[in-house]
Amino acid sequence: MINIGILGYGYWGPNLVRNFNNSDQFKVKAVCDLDRIKLKPLQQAHPFINIDKTFDELITDSSIDAIAIATPISTHYDLSIKALQNGKHVFVEKPMADTSLKCMQLIEESEKRNLVLFVDHTFPYTESVNKIKHLITNNILGEIYYFDSTRVNLGLFDFDSSVIWDLAIHDLSIVEYLFDTKPISVSGVGKANIDGQPINIASISLNFNNNLYVHINVNWLSPVKIRKILISGDKKMLVYDDIEPTEKIKIYDKGIDVYDDLTINKIKYGYRSGDVNAPYLKQEEPLLKVVENFADVINGIDDPLLSRYQAMNIIKILEAAALSIRHGGKPESLI
Amino acid sequence: MINIGILGYGYWGPNLVRNFNNSDQFKVKAVCDLDRIKLKPLQQAHPFINIDKTFDELITDSSIDAIAIATPISTHYDLSIKALQNGKHVFVEKPMADTSLKCMQLIEESEKRNLVLFVDHTFPYTESVNKIKHLITNNILGEIYYFDSTRVNLGLFDFDSSVIWDLAIHDLSIVEYLFDTKPISVSGVGKANIDGQPINIASISLNFNNNLYVHINVNWLSPVKIRKILISGDKKMLVYDDIEPTEKIKIYDKGIDVYDDLTINKIKYGYRSGDVNAPYLKQEEPLLKVVENFADVINGIDDPLLSRYQAMNIIKILEAAALSIRHGGKPESLI
Amino acid sequence: MINIGILGYGYWGPNLVRNFNNSDQFKVKAVCDLDRIKLKPLQQAHPFINIDKTFDELITDSSIDAIAIATPISTHYDLSIKALQNGKHVFVEKPMADTSLKCMQLIEESEKRNLVLFVDHTFPYTESVNKIKHLITNNILGEIYYFDSTRVNLGLFDFDSSVIWDLAIHDLSIVEYLFDTKPISVSGVGKANIDGQPINIASISLNFNNNLYVHINVNWLSPVKIRKILISGDKKMLVYDDIEPTEKIKIYDKGIDVYDDLTINKIKYGYRSGDVNAPYLKQEEPLLKVVENFADVINGIDDPLLSRYQAMNIIKILEAAALSIRHGGKPESLI
Amino acid sequence: MINIGILGYGYWGPNLVRNFNNSDQFKVKAVCDLDRIKLKPLQQAHPFINIDKTFDELITDSSIDAIAIATPISTHYDLSIKALQNGKHVFVEKPMADTSLKCMQLIEESEKRNLVLFVDHTFPYTESVNKIKHLITNNILGEIYYFDSTRVNLGLFDFDSSVIWDLAIHDLSIVEYLFDTKPISVSGVGKANIDGQPINIASISLNFNNNLYVHINVNWLSPVKIRKILISGDKKMLVYDDIEPTEKIKIYDKGIDVYDDLTINKIKYGYRSGDVNAPYLKQEEPLLKVVENFADVINGIDDPLLSRYQAMNIIKILEAAALSIRHGGKPESLI
Repeated sequence: MINIGILGYGYWGPNLVRNFNNSDQFKVKAVCDLDRIKLKPLQQAHPFINIDKTFDELITDSSIDAIAIATPISTHYDLSIKALQNGKHVFVEKPMADTSLKCMQLIEESEKRNLVLFVDHTFPYTESVNKIKHLITNNILGEIYYFDSTRVNLGLFDFDSSVIWDLAIHDLSIVEYLFDTKPISVSGVGKANIDGQPINIASISLNFNNNLYVHINVNWLSPVKIRKILISGDKKMLVYDDIEPTEKIKIYDKGIDVYDDLTINKIKYGYRSGDVNAPYLKQEEPLLKVVENFADVINGIDDPLLSRYQAMNIIKILEAAALSIRHGGKPESLI
Repeated sequence: MINIGILGYGYWGPNLVRNFNNSDQFKVKAVCDLDRIKLKPLQQAHPFINIDKTFDELITDSSIDAIAIATPISTHYDLSIKALQNGKHVFVEKPMADTSLKCMQLIEESEKRNLVLFVDHTFPYTESVNKIKHLITNNILGEIYYFDSTRVNLGLFDFDSSVIWDLAIHDLSIVEYLFDTKPISVSGVGKANIDGQPINIASISLNFNNNLYVHINVNWLSPVKIRKILISGDKKMLVYDDIEPTEKIKIYDKGIDVYDDLTINKIKYGYRSGDVNAPYLKQEEPLLKVVENFADVINGIDDPLLSRYQAMNIIKILEAAALSIRHGGKPESLI
Repeated sequence: MINIGILGYGYWGPNLVRNFNNSDQFKVKAVCDLDRIKLKPLQQAHPFINIDKTFDELITDSSIDAIAIATPISTHYDLSIKALQNGKHVFVEKPMADTSLKCMQLIEESEKRNLVLFVDHTFPYTESVNKIKHLITNNILGEIYYFDSTRVNLGLFDFDSSVIWDLAIHDLSIVEYLFDTKPISVSGVGKANIDGQPINIASISLNFNNNLYVHINVNWLSPVKIRKILISGDKKMLVYDDIEPTEKIKIYDKGIDVYDDLTINKIKYGYRSGDVNAPYLKQEEPLLKVVENFADVINGIDDPLLSRYQAMNIIKILEAAALSIRHGGKPESLI
Repeated sequence: MINIGILGYGYWGPNLVRNFNNSDQFKVKAVCDLDRIKLKPLQQAHPFINIDKTFDELITDSSIDAIAIATPISTHYDLSIKALQNGKHVFVEKPMADTSLKCMQLIEESEKRNLVLFVDHTFPYTESVNKIKHLITNNILGEIYYFDSTRVNLGLFDFDSSVIWDLAIHDLSIVEYLFDTKPISVSGVGKANIDGQPINIASISLNFNNNLYVHINVNWLSPVKIRKILISGDKKMLVYDDIEPTEKIKIYDKGIDVYDDLTINKIKYGYRSGDVNAPYLKQEEPLLKVVENFADVINGIDDPLLSRYQAMNIIKILEAAALSIRHGGKPESLI
C-alpha cells in the first residue's frame, strides 16, 4: 500500500482523490489546498483523510510515500522538485512544468534519487486511444498519412496559459503515444482576440521525416464543443469523435488505391468505399488506470505509457509552437 | 436576350447549360467539348443547341455575345483572352486563371475593351452566405473574432492542382465577400501523402490588421465529408454546416462578456449562454442567381457580388499560401 | 424491345419516363396527361415521344405493348382494367387500386389474359432493403422479434387518401418482402386533426402467429422528417435510417442473452454489447431495377419481388387498419 | 427542518440521499436496505446517518417526520400505508402502487390523517418539460394536435413489471402535467418476445374529447436509445429530444395554414416553414426541485406539480392499457 498525499483540491483534485481511493494500491493520507473551504465536503465524506497540513508539512511528512500535484501550472515545478528532494515519488498533472528546462531539472532530480516522476496525461489510458494504438501497431490502418484534430469549445479560459497549453497538449500526448517517430519541426498560427488575454484560437502542425502529417486546431471561443480526430492510413481511415456517447471510433474501409495501369503504362488512382465499423469500447474510467499504472511503476513492475522524456518533449513542442505563433507561422526546428 | 456559347461540358458544364437555359435573359446558342460523346445526350434533349463548332469557331462566331468557360483550369486564360479579344463578355469558372499575372492581363484586356469579365464563385450567391453577410453587416454578431472552416472529403483529387486550389478557394471567396478588410499575410502548411501527387491536406491562415483571424482546413483524403464554418463575434457566434439539409446556419447567443469589476478594480470575464436560432433559408439554386447577376452586369444595371479584382486577389492569396506551404508555414506578405 | 406508353405526368411520371428511357429493354412511345402544359418540357427534351394521344387512344394503340399508370389513385382501377382488356401489360403505381375487391378483379383479368400486372412498390428494390432481406434470410439477425418503423414528415397531405395509404404502405411493402409469414390481425389508431380532412397521424400494428411484431408510426404533421426502422432479432439488431446519406443501415451486435444458470437452477438474462457495422451500400437508382424487373417478368425470365397477390394483400391490410382506426384500435382479423 | 428516513438504497436510493442531503429543508436521519452491504459506502461518506434500523423500526421512529420509499414496486403500498398509519408524510417513487385500488386506499389514508402523500414523478420538474408547459399555457404552440413519444433502449428489463410500467409511465406523467383534459379511452398493443417474460415492446394511444391525440412508443429491446417527443399545435411544432446534451427542445415555426380561398369559395391548405429556435435551458438537477417541492407541500406553502389523484390516474391508464394490449388493441374506456 502506497501512502499518498494530494496537493490541490480545485477542478481536478477531487477526481484524483476518488481514483486513488478506489485503487487498492493507494491509501490517501492527506489532501491540502490553500482554500480550506473547498476541503469541507471532503472532510465530511472522508473523516479519516487529514486536511489540516500545509503543503510543506505534507511534502516533508515521513509517513507519505508519494505526492500527487493538481495545483496551478506555475507551481508544478516548485512543488515537484521539493517533493523529489524529500524522497517522494511524484505524480504531477500535465503539463509537467511551464518550461522544458524545468522539466529537465525534474527528470534529473528524479533519476538522481531513483524516484518515479509520473505526469498525468490521461488520454493514452482511454479505451479509445488504446484501440487506435492497436489499429496502428497491427498495421490495420496501414502507413499513416495524417492525424488531424479539432478540439474546440467555449472556455475554460486559463488566464495563466494559452489555448495550446490547455487543449493542444491533449493531442500532443496522443501523438506521442501513437507514433514512434518524432516531429522535426512545428509551425503554429493563432490569435488573442480578447484584449490583454492569451491566445484563444490556434492551430499547430508537426512535420516528420516520414509521410506523417499532424495538424491540431484548438479554440476557446467556439459556440459548439467539438472533439474530432481524423486519422488516415493507406489501408483504412478512422474518425475518433470523443463527444459521441457510444460509437467514439469509426473505422472506414475507404481510401485511394494506387496501381499500375499496364495498358497505358501509367500509375492510376481510384477511390474505394466499403463498410464502416464502430468497435465496442468498454466504459471504464481511464484515471483509475492512470493511478494503477503509477503504482506499478513505483513497484517496478511496469513502465508508464508516456515516459517522463516524452512528457518533456510535449513541453518542447508547445514552446516551439508558441514561438512559431509569435512569428506568424515560421517553422521552428525540434531537433 | 444575350446569346451565350459554353466551352466545356464535363463536370460543371451541364449545370451551366441548365441554368443559362432556365434564365430568361440568356439563349444558349452553342456548347462545345473536345469529347464529342459527352454532348450526345445534350443534343437529344436540346436539338436546337449547336454542338458542332470548335472552340475557335464558337469564340469567333459573330452571333454570340458572351462565352462561358468550364474547361480545365490550365486553359482558362487562353480561352478567356481569346474571347475578350473577339469582343465577347466572359463568364469563367473559378479560379479565374492559374496565376495572378494572367488574372491581371485578363482584367486589363476586359477593361480596355469595356467587356464584362465575370468569375463564377458560387458561394456568395447561396442563401446561407447571404444570411451570414446580413448578420455581419447589421452588427448582429458584433466585431468578428474569427472565421474557421473545415472543408474535407474523400476526393476529388485534381491532379493539375492541389487541395487548396480546389477546396480552400471556396472559403477564400466567402471571406472576400463577407469582410471589408484585406489580409496582410498568409501562412500555410500541408502535405502530399501520395507519391508524385499534389498536396492533399493543408491548412492556411490569414492575418489581418484588425482583430479578425481566418483559418481554413482542407483535405482530399478524409473518410467523412465535413463542410463546417465557425464564425464568432463579440456579440454572437454561428456555425454554418453546409451538410445539414435544413438547419445550415445556427446562431448561438453565446460568448464571453468582458466587464469592469469595480469592487476589485479589475476587468473580469464571464461566459454567457442563451438561445440557439436556425433561421429559415429558402432553397433556391444559387447558380441561377449567378447567371442572372452576370446578365445584369452585362446590361450595366448591377455589380457582381465579387469584382474581378477580388477574384484576382483570391489567386494571389492561393499563390502566397502555396509558397508558404513550401517553406513550412513561413508567412508570406500580401501587401 | 417493349413499347411502353405512360399515363400521368405529374409528380412521379417524369421518374418513370426517365427510367424507362434509361432501360435498354423499353422504348417510350407516348406519354399523356390531362394537363397538356406539363408535357411541354418533355416534348422539348424528347421530340420523338408522342404526347398528343388521349388516354383511350394510347390504351388502344396497337403499337404499344405495355402501359404504365402514374395517375391519381382513384383512376388506377379503370385505367388498368381497360389496358388489360386491350391486351397490354400493366405497370401501375402503388397502391394497385383503392379497394381490395378491385385488386382481385385486376388480378383475375390479368390471369385470364395471361398478361403481366406489376405494381410499383419501389422499396424492395433499394440496396438497403435488399441488404436487410439478406441479413434475415441468412439468419444473421436470428429469429426476428419486431419491425418498428417511424415515417413522419410535414406534408404531403393527400386529400383523397389518408396518411396510412400514403406512408404506411411503404412499410407494409417492406414487411411483405422481408417476412414469409402473414399477419393474422391488425390494430390501428389515429386522428384527423384538421377539420374535414383525412387522418394525418396514425400507427398500426400487425400480429402474427409467431414471435414477430410489427409497429408502424406515420404522421403528415411532423416538424421533422424521420425515416427510421428498428429491427431486432435474437442474434443482432439493426437500425435502417433512410435519411442518412451514407450509413443507412447499422447492424448492432447487441441483444439479450438467455441462459440456464445451473447454480441456481433458473433461467437468467444478460445484455450483450458489441461492435456496430454499417455495410457499404451501392448508390443505385432502385426505380431502374423496378422497370428492368418488369421487363424480365414480361419476358418470362424472372418473378417480381412482390407478386400481385402480395400487392393486393397490402391493400387488404390498409382496409382493415382503416376500419380498426374507426373503432379506436379494435383489432381486425386478416384471415 | 424535516427529519426524513429513506427506505431502499438500490438504483434510485443514492440519488434520494444526495438530494435530500443537499436540501436545506431536510435532515436525512436514517437509510435502510435489506442488503446491508450496499449501505457500507454510505456509512463511510456519511457517518452520522443511521443505517442500522429495520424498515419497521424506521417507520415507527418518533424522531422521523417523513419517509421516502425507493424499494421494489410491489412493496410500495405496504410500506406507504404503514408509514401513513404511523403519522409520517410519504414520498414514494413512481408508480405510487401496483394497482389503482391500492392508490385509492393510500390517498384515503393520507387524507384521513391529513398527511402528505407525494409521488416522485421527476419529469414535470425538469427545465425541458417546464419550458413546454410554458409554451402550451401561453398558447405559443396554439391548439395542440398531438403528443407523440418514442422512448426506447436496451434494458432495463424489469421482471416484475412490463415496459409500459417502466417507460410509458414517464410520458403519462408529462401528459398529465401538460394538458388539462383527461383521456376518455386508451388503446394498447405490444408483445412479449422473450419466452415467459413481460411485454418488452408496446405502444399506447390516448383518445380525448377534443382535438388532442397521444401516442407513446416504448421498447426494452432497441439497439439505440431514443427519447424523442414530437408535439404539434396549429401555430408551432416542437421536438423534445432528451438525449441531446444542450439543444433538448427545438421549436419549429412550421405548420399547415388553413384559409378560405374566396376566389374559388373553398378552404385551402398551405405549408409554412420558418425559423427554428432552441431555447436556453438551465442545467439543474430536477430531483432537488422535487424534494424541495415535497418540503413546501408538507409546510403547506405549495402544491405538488402532480397531485396524488393525478398520480393515481396514471396507474388507471396503465391498467387499462395493459388490458387493451391483452385484447389486441381493443380500446378501454377511462371514464
